[in-house]
Formats: sequence, structure tokens, C-alpha cells
Amino acid sequence: MRVGILGSGLMGGKLGTLFTRAGHEVVFSYARRPEKLDRLAREAGGNARAGTPGEAARDADALLLAVHWSRIEDVLQQAGDVSGKVIVSCSLPMNADDTELVVAHTSSGAEELAKRVPGATVISAFNTIPSEVLFAVFEARGNATRPSLVYCGDTGSGKQLAARLIRDVGFDPVDAGQLRIARYTEPFGLLVAQLAYEGEGGPELAYRFERYGK
Amino acid sequence: MRVGILGSGLMGGKLGTLFTRAGHEVVFSYARRPEKLDRLAREAGGNARAGTPGEAARDADALLLAVHWSRIEDVLQQAGDVSGKVIVSCSLPMNADDTELVVAHTSSGAEELAKRVPGATVISAFNTIPSEVLFAVFEARGNATRPSLVYCGDTGSGKQLAARLIRDVGFDPVDAGQLRIARYTEPFGLLVAQLAYEGEGGPELAYRFERYGK
Repeated sequence: MRVGILGSGLMGGKLGTLFTRAGHEVVFSYARRPEKLDRLAREAGGNARAGTPGEAARDADALLLAVHWSRIEDVLQQAGDVSGKVIVSCSLPMNADDTELVVAHTSSGAEELAKRVPGATVISAFNTIPSEVLFAVFEARGNATRPSLVYCGDTGSGKQLAARLIRDVGFDPVDAGQLRIARYTEPFGLLVAQLAYEGEGGPELAYRFERYGK
Repeated sequence: MRVGILGSGLMGGKLGTLFTRAGHEVVFSYARRPEKLDRLAREAGGNARAGTPGEAARDADALLLAVHWSRIEDVLQQAGDVSGKVIVSCSLPMNADDTELVVAHTSSGAEELAKRVPGATVISAFNTIPSEVLFAVFEARGNATRPSLVYCGDTGSGKQLAARLIRDVGFDPVDAGQLRIARYTEPFGLLVAQLAYEGEGGPELAYRFERYGK
């Protein structure tokens, strides 16, 4: 699969590296310093390279949107036409201080994004786990049980694609339903962040849904 | 411990039964039909009885508030003075149709409740798991790993008490921080409900936070 990474910070950099290791063709884009993209591509090895957001988007089967909410407009403008693309977004709609959601309850970041790019398929994923846990989960992907990762969206084919990427990096994809469920998954992402960064035990935190009884 | 149950529906009825089995003295109160309270108390065995909300509150070390959001005012009026009490609330602030939160994002049900009863200590708990999973988790409480249950509140002693009740029914209590974190835990409760009732696999759903690596 060809995966374009829009935003090469903690989440985008790590997920792009893991998508590369899982055998996908990855283009890293959109960092403050272009050298960082080169370094990410070099260190990811395999089939990764640095590029512009437009290059990342051009032939992508999936785009990972991993920028701060305040950068969405800018990165989308640089990416150009994304009609027909599957956009997997892990951007939580946070204010500039990262202290609270600027969209919630009556809408979600994912739904607002979908309105902004009506020709694309938006899937909300990778926004409920801290970046610090990604490599450890990837390394443990052969274990009998995997941590869960919730995702949601309105299009079956786009969701299948997101589920594959989630599986590729070592998580068990959990379909939470339609894109509007991002109104719950996005605050859940903040709950996980609270436990990871403010709780005891460090930020390498993941979660697992399990059924009991029966 | 003496635990008063305000609201004896699915959550209140089951948790009151399990608190009784865990050795606590329980008063079931506030059901549409008083016979239901008698039945719950009889079936719980041990040290359980039926009573009015006022009786449930009178000598309680902890009150479990488990009514529909629309009933909060009514049950509190019937309970009388709750100053100095620890109220463990599992009431999500849902509309009459149970389709969405009526308070969220800029406040939470738990914070609004705390404003309503300023002399009491409000702890938000037991609102992120479906009632269907409670008995199975209780039965499995001897297992090596337990499912998590997040709780939050502003008072250390109240939180300790809530943590004990959580542990008593078979979960691993996870301190999510101050009461304002209910802005995240309440939508998380709706996410779990979505997975339990709309997802595949049935409603006997619990979750577990786990740390990886290190």
C-alpha cells in the first residue's frame, strides 16, 4: 500500500516508520525542518522517502493526517486535491495550548474534517493511544493478545483500509461505528492522554476491550 | 461499609447486590415499584434491605447514585441532607431518549452534580462499563488480571472509598484525576456503550489499560 504521511511529528513520524517496516511504501511530509523528513525516511529504511504534502498525497492509497489541529487548513492546501482519497486522521481538535478540545459534543474534529474535504473518505483512528507506546506494541505484535485501537468512519472500504493499517502496526482494530462516534473517541483520546501523562506508570499506555462471561 | 443505593435499576440493582456479596451493608432505594426493592434485598442475601432514599442516605458511608439524569433532582430531594456524604455517581447526563449527553465538553454530569450538593463529595465511577458485564467480572475477581474501571474526583478520602468499592466488585480501579476529567470519562462511557450494544460480540464488555515495553 502507498501511505502518505501529512505531519511528521511524534505520531506521524512513528506511524510512518512502522508502516514502512510493515512493508508499505511511505512518503513523509510536512515538518518544520525538511532535514527531519530525510532523516525519518532514511531511518525507516525500506520503501520510505521524504516529499512535499502534494507528493505524499499524489499516489497514496491512504493519507495519514497527523498535524496539530491548527495546521489542518495549511497542510490540506499544500496537499492539493484529495478527492477520492482515504484520509486516516489522528488529529484531535485541540486548542493552541493543547489543554482542551475546540470541537466536541455536538460535532468532532473528524466530522469537521470530513466537511472540509467532501470528496475524500475520512476515518478517525490512531488518536486514542500515546505515541510512546507505538514501538513497544509493534514489537509485541506476535503475542497472543494485542491491544485494541478504536476507529470510526462512514465508508466500508475506507474502514477496511484503516483496519489493515491498524493491524499492521500491532493493534487489534475495533470498529466503533460511524464517523459521528468520533464525538466519543476524541474525548476518550484525552482520557488516555490524561492517564498516560498525568497518571502513574509512564506514557507507554494502551488499552484492550475484552468480553467477559458467556 | 454502609452503602446506600439511590436508584435500583440495572446498574444500582446489580452493584448493590455485588456490594452485599462483598460484605457491605446495603440499602436499596428508589424504584418505580417498591416490591422490586424487597426482591433485590432478598435475593442479594447478606446484609441488604429495602428502604427509602432518606433511609439509604442516613448512615451511609457511601451513596451510589444510579438514576437516570432526569431523576437526579427528585432522588436528591427524597434523600434529604447529604452533607458530608461521599456520593459515587454512575449517572451519565443523558437526554430523555438516551441518545446524547445534555452536558459535556465544557462541563460534565459529575461537575453539575457536585454543584448541586456542595456539602457532599462526588466521585464519578461505574459509568464506563455496561451493567451486563458486572456479574461475570465479579465471578472472575480471583483471576491474575482484572479489567480496569476509571474513576475521578477531587477528594482523596472519597476516591479511596470509591476505589475500594470498585475493587470489591472485581475491577482494578484506575484514578483518572480530578472531577473535571469526567468530561472525558462520560463520553468514554458512551463509547463503551456503543461498542457493547451496537458492536459485534454482545454487551458483556469491559476494558483494561495496560502498559507496554519498559
